[in-house]
Amino acid sequence: MSLLTIGTAAFDDIETPFGRAERAIGGAAVYISWAASYFTRDVRMVSIVGEDFPQTELRELNQRGVDTAGVEVVPGRKSFYWAGKYQHDMNVRDTLATDLNVLADFDPELPDVYRNSDYVMLGNLTPDVQMGIISQMEPRPRLIAMDTMNFWMDNALDKLLDTLKHIDILIINDEEARQLSGEYSLVKAAHKIHKMGPEFLVIKKGEHGALLFNSEDIFIAPALPLAEVFDPTGAGDTFAGGFMGYLTKTRDTSFENMKRAMIYGSAMASFCVEKFSLERLKELTQEEIYDRVQKFRALTYFDGIEQVL
Amino acid sequence: MSLLTIGTAAFDDIETPFGRAERAIGGAAVYISWAASYFTRDVRMVSIVGEDFPQTELRELNQRGVDTAGVEVVPGRKSFYWAGKYQHDMNVRDTLATDLNVLADFDPELPDVYRNSDYVMLGNLTPDVQMGIISQMEPRPRLIAMDTMNFWMDNALDKLLDTLKHIDILIINDEEARQLSGEYSLVKAAHKIHKMGPEFLVIKKGEHGALLFNSEDIFIAPALPLAEVFDPTGAGDTFAGGFMGYLTKTRDTSFENMKRAMIYGSAMASFCVEKFSLERLKELTQEEIYDRVQKFRALTYFDGIEQVL
Repeated sequence: MSLLTIGTAAFDDIETPFGRAERAIGGAAVYISWAASYFTRDVRMVSIVGEDFPQTELRELNQRGVDTAGVEVVPGRKSFYWAGKYQHDMNVRDTLATDLNVLADFDPELPDVYRNSDYVMLGNLTPDVQMGIISQMEPRPRLIAMDTMNFWMDNALDKLLDTLKHIDILIINDEEARQLSGEYSLVKAAHKIHKMGPEFLVIKKGEHGALLFNSEDIFIAPALPLAEVFDPTGAGDTFAGGFMGYLTKTRDTSFENMKRAMIYGSAMASFCVEKFSLERLKELTQEEIYDRVQKFRALTYFDGIEQVL
Repeated sequence: MSLLTIGTAAFDDIETPFGRAERAIGGAAVYISWAASYFTRDVRMVSIVGEDFPQTELRELNQRGVDTAGVEVVPGRKSFYWAGKYQHDMNVRDTLATDLNVLADFDPELPDVYRNSDYVMLGNLTPDVQMGIISQMEPRPRLIAMDTMNFWMDNALDKLLDTLKHIDILIINDEEARQLSGEYSLVKAAHKIHKMGPEFLVIKKGEHGALLFNSEDIFIAPALPLAEVFDPTGAGDTFAGGFMGYLTKTRDTSFENMKRAMIYGSAMASFCVEKFSLERLKELTQEEIYDRVQKFRALTYFDGIEQVL
């Protein structure tokens, strides 16, 4: 099974209470592809970079089984750049700078061999570009997941709502779910968002875990309580990459299997925040991932709830 | 097995986005006792009220098996009064008024039959009063749990730290854990708080659930995602009452059994917020409680995490 992903590839300047990283490699498509590469050798990446983006980064991805034929390199231009600063509450970040650079003209045409991908993860981008990808897929993928952000709700709501009609899973954070639905209660928010199109909704809550909804049921994946979160950059995309990577690997899109995908996604995200940028994601072993998943299981597992009353 | 609890009995004026309640019956000891009464018929309540407090409320508790011999009624004085207002984020509340009234002179002497109680739940009060109860117990109870709040950290820290050396479980919220420890990370906070005395720590996070720590392990109980939280007043005390009630009923203070107590406590709290004041807590059936516990299980339960990588 194959997974197509589209998103940014970027340079990030990051400041956290633990230190700073300058021109670290980042971007949604990069984090998603790295995380998914631990589950499947058939990841197809779509992105755009300038001539300043290190070719070694793409080669490393190729060695992980990620096809980067869909990554456009624009001569004489610069890659997307983001600078941000985190406070002690790592759920809150201030964006200090955003230079779109090559991203301003991003209008990807899929390589022919990408069009029949089984699973699709649309990283956060303008809904126009996300819809453009969906319309190039043939046949319709088994499952299309999508991330978005407040900016598109403010500036491209009609196009965003149109795109939502064509996807299966929306993966956003709690603040975004509240803005999109106009509801404070996440249960009510989920109800409204289902009516917009997506059968499944994942709401990410950072250190408070993540919720999976379909129209009837809810599953809660915990976040691993950590002594230190060095850098949350990319954690949401890493979650999405692990989540979709697991579904791609297991070929099962039932709600029951999505629960397991939530745990694998959460486990991958818990690694991501342990070091700056992609550092930790690049050095993982399958044993580490499996041990982490067992830790997640232990966090919420209990038995012996008999009727004691 | 018997459970002794001490705390306020109060009139609450409450305003939430869903409405308001005036002079509703509340207070930590009242919520704790009601919640615990679904688990054990041997609850011993210590509190203080003025002559304005309805005798019917104490009689209702008696009918639930709660001994109110330890509730002092002061003629010619008024009961403790609290007024508060909740915003849409029900984790945040503004206190509009606090009239200590009879609580200002609270210096309880335990009825003799209370002194040998097996389990103790010290509701939020000045650490002097909490320590006074501990010193009157004979023999030392099997388990002493305690709640506290920021106010005592600001105004009676030495006495609070002294009291912490004599208890087994501290039950506080995330903000309080951070202030008490001086650590933002709850993992680090737990580590420091263990060194202050309590072997176990429960950190309540409202809609984000609750964490149980001992020196080695962590357990996470989810909160039930609700479409509407009508009134969070008393939810923390209701959690504590359910938690300690379950331990009293099952006579097992192992970490494994505390996990189950966390779920029962969370289930009780999820009922509490469905209506104003004690309304929902007074009308529960054992079937409802057991069904709710099964819902909590379904929220986080998953199986079949095989080594798929």
